Amino acid sequence: VPERLDLNADIGEGFGIWQLGDDSALLEVVTSANVACGFHAGDPAIMRRVCAQAVSRNVVIGAQVGYRDLAGFGRRAIEVPSAALRADVVYQIGALDAFARLAGDRVRYVKPHGALYNTAMVDERQAEAVAAAVAEYRGELALLGQPDSALASAAATLSIRYVVEAFADRGYDRSGRLVARTEPGAVITDSAAVVAQALAVVGGSVVALDGSVVPIHAESLCLHGDTPAAAEHARAVRAALTAAGTDLRPFA
Amino acid sequence: VPERLDLNADIGEGFGIWQLGDDSALLEVVTSANVACGFHAGDPAIMRRVCAQAVSRNVVIGAQVGYRDLAGFGRRAIEVPSAALRADVVYQIGALDAFARLAGDRVRYVKPHGALYNTAMVDERQAEAVAAAVAEYRGELALLGQPDSALASAAATLSIRYVVEAFADRGYDRSGRLVARTEPGAVITDSAAVVAQALAVVGGSVVALDGSVVPIHAESLCLHGDTPAAAEHARAVRAALTAAGTDLRPFA
Amino acid sequence: VPERLDLNADIGEGFGIWQLGDDSALLEVVTSANVACGFHAGDPAIMRRVCAQAVSRNVVIGAQVGYRDLAGFGRRAIEVPSAALRADVVYQIGALDAFARLAGDRVRYVKPHGALYNTAMVDERQAEAVAAAVAEYRGELALLGQPDSALASAAATLSIRYVVEAFADRGYDRSGRLVARTEPGAVITDSAAVVAQALAVVGGSVVALDGSVVPIHAESLCLHGDTPAAAEHARAVRAALTAAGTDLRPFA
Amino acid sequence: VPERLDLNADIGEGFGIWQLGDDSALLEVVTSANVACGFHAGDPAIMRRVCAQAVSRNVVIGAQVGYRDLAGFGRRAIEVPSAALRADVVYQIGALDAFARLAGDRVRYVKPHGALYNTAMVDERQAEAVAAAVAEYRGELALLGQPDSALASAAATLSIRYVVEAFADRGYDRSGRLVARTEPGAVITDSAAVVAQALAVVGGSVVALDGSVVPIHAESLCLHGDTPAAAEHARAVRAALTAAGTDLRPFA
Repeated sequence: VPERLDLNADIGEGFGIWQLGDDSALLEVVTSANVACGFHAGDPAIMRRVCAQAVSRNVVIGAQVGYRDLAGFGRRAIEVPSAALRADVVYQIGALDAFARLAGDRVRYVKPHGALYNTAMVDERQAEAVAAAVAEYRGELALLGQPDSALASAAATLSIRYVVEAFADRGYDRSGRLVARTEPGAVITDSAAVVAQALAVVGGSVVALDGSVVPIHAESLCLHGDTPAAAEHARAVRAALTAAGTDLRPFA
Repeated sequence: VPERLDLNADIGEGFGIWQLGDDSALLEVVTSANVACGFHAGDPAIMRRVCAQAVSRNVVIGAQVGYRDLAGFGRRAIEVPSAALRADVVYQIGALDAFARLAGDRVRYVKPHGALYNTAMVDERQAEAVAAAVAEYRGELALLGQPDSALASAAATLSIRYVVEAFADRGYDRSGRLVARTEPGAVITDSAAVVAQALAVVGGSVVALDGSVVPIHAESLCLHGDTPAAAEHARAVRAALTAAGTDLRPFA
Repeated sequence: VPERLDLNADIGEGFGIWQLGDDSALLEVVTSANVACGFHAGDPAIMRRVCAQAVSRNVVIGAQVGYRDLAGFGRRAIEVPSAALRADVVYQIGALDAFARLAGDRVRYVKPHGALYNTAMVDERQAEAVAAAVAEYRGELALLGQPDSALASAAATLSIRYVVEAFADRGYDRSGRLVARTEPGAVITDSAAVVAQALAVVGGSVVALDGSVVPIHAESLCLHGDTPAAAEHARAVRAALTAAGTDLRPFA
Repeated sequence: VPERLDLNADIGEGFGIWQLGDDSALLEVVTSANVACGFHAGDPAIMRRVCAQAVSRNVVIGAQVGYRDLAGFGRRAIEVPSAALRADVVYQIGALDAFARLAGDRVRYVKPHGALYNTAMVDERQAEAVAAAVAEYRGELALLGQPDSALASAAATLSIRYVVEAFADRGYDRSGRLVARTEPGAVITDSAAVVAQALAVVGGSVVALDGSVVPIHAESLCLHGDTPAAAEHARAVRAALTAAGTDLRPFA
């Protein structure tokens, strides 16, 4: 039984006057913060604030890089040419790293956001562009994502540490893949079921929608906080994991 | 008589498909490149390319920070609150520094662009925000601007090295200030006159529009390259300074 | 005693995934909707939705035009050249008018937003640019703003109908001007006081902060809805005015 | 033999300080102007200027609508949801129509730009969104594009007039499709060959790359002007067509 687990969540996804989620509440729950870098969400003032908050709570800072798409919140797949995507990722990491350093730490990992996350799991070209940016920015950076993915392969090729994450509030199929959001059972809304799946992940497996037990080896658990229910789930998961004796600490 | 001088110019001011000026030609002339950082011009792919070109030509990289204003090319004064402006400047320096490091160097100075340059020379609040961002980003960074300005004062307060620049193609008044662009004589278009003023700057003075000789102590000369005539002036200035034995080298 | 009054509020000020205020609730209260047009807030999908909602509730549609400044929510004064500002205003009205027509109505008035509102009240150049855009777009459009202002003068010169608005939740000085937000008493937070001032406006006067009674002749009352308290005030004001027999109807 | 033909070209594709192509020169050649609307290129001041120039030269105005993607010049395919895409297209047409009306005319047709053009030719969902926006904006609007395409079908379903265009400087395959830009022969660079293909289009056929003669029935010929060579070709084509007695006039 694994004794330690990282908890990650998206942080700093407002823009200007607009807010999204409760960053302060989530930063009390997680051990790693995926901080938006201004392309799909986030702005410099927000980045500065959440980096300072993260460091003061011993939360590790990661760069949540996305497509340049404020209007679509980075949720629209975009066919960005490789060289442009790679430069966009470097730019975002560099900008966030400035604020991480001002807060007394560094950016320690990268997690793609939204459509870039989904595309980087299956599209070799975009996966390689993201991984190349991470590798050239700083060799110690880790990449966070799904197992057995194009991004995992690209990371391996470039000797980037690849950290697998699991979800407590998403349904899995028998092959260990997330059920698409358009399918029934994709999102788990019952609080007890979310907590149960979190505990199962620590134990090294999840129960798929068809009842089969699927092994899963995740170093990090992704929590959501953009709705009141999601934030409550996040707190419940942390409480249950703590009660179970799991050592909650950053993977980085 | 000063024996050395830095030559600086704005570089990387295209955006996406759009180009502006001839970066490659200017990088053959200058010793310091004010590289646009994506807020008023420039994009990550351009920043990567011009940083690599600059380093390969031994040209020092500076961050040409601007207002977030692509539509106005950063030429419109904007009343950005201090905290937002400071964060915007840190963000831009950090993003550019990523590409400077990839090219094998670092950002070594900061020069505000356009309306931010003009405002930072006279407005204490914005000058302090820019200077505070520079100081907190990295203590070794220099600031480039006009003498006897709000920005110079803010830099002094924060112990930032402040480098004074002069212009070969702009008219001065008897108090050593640039003549406003709306006034006659503001821009010098005759090539011989541009060269003459460049040589005068090395000698420690310029001839003002009213004929008086004004002392000027500049470590850097700003060259323009966004028009064919300006690029030609830049080359003529470099040739004349070299012929006169001036040691052209970066101030940083 | 005036027997009729218009109630206006800012509507559609979200962007993409981000929301601001409760448009549906406010559209039950007001008679005129100042709809954001995409430059400081608002996007095409939001514009379509709120135009449809407005028309279904017999709420008149106005164009809430702003500076091109999503990052600052249009609250930063920008020195936009006259020709550019005029074209920006035409563009925004035209875009909104498309959705107003799809909903079965037209844009019937224009109200500048945020820093453009404040600047257009005192700066002749920007006031004239806004008024010129309104006049050339369609002669029947009205302009909404403060009395005795640069915008009022520019509207008069161009024979644009100018509609004066008052505020129920802002303090006035003895000359009938709004107290600056940085001053004590600028914002009225007590619900009873807000309702009292709304009733006073219908009666043709307000009590200034120093206790003096100032005549005010407003055809429209501006309500805020971007906080829960503000939305509650808006509902209370409407209830009180209705109970007092005021005929609440659009000015347009 | 068809006796009349429309000549269309992309116009107004600068942004702020940045220019692209020679609008004035092209407006002397074409009969229809595809004017960029601010999403992939173009800004309000440019739109005003080119609309005025077009009307003064009796050139018909069309809305060149694109993805919201200044950084990629609209050349990156984006999976925009249908409702958002439809609203984006309405917004762009409405904004341009304002300037067309100020110039004394109206927007008379719509042509998607770049990646939206390519996607709308093969993707039913995006084609339907574009066509629905055109139909609801104004029934008299035409759509310009490739024959036998998803967009042509969507236009037919909504009873929108669909105008087929051909290219003088692009190679065709034996099925009458454009050869992909990545293939040899995709772009015709020889001036005489460009003129020959233009004359062939008037005659109702083109010679495919494999030498076969392919019937083609186009009401409009698309000309490019973004390079000096392209602009020269455009002028040569117009001269040759005029000399051949073709009646060059807008399709709208």
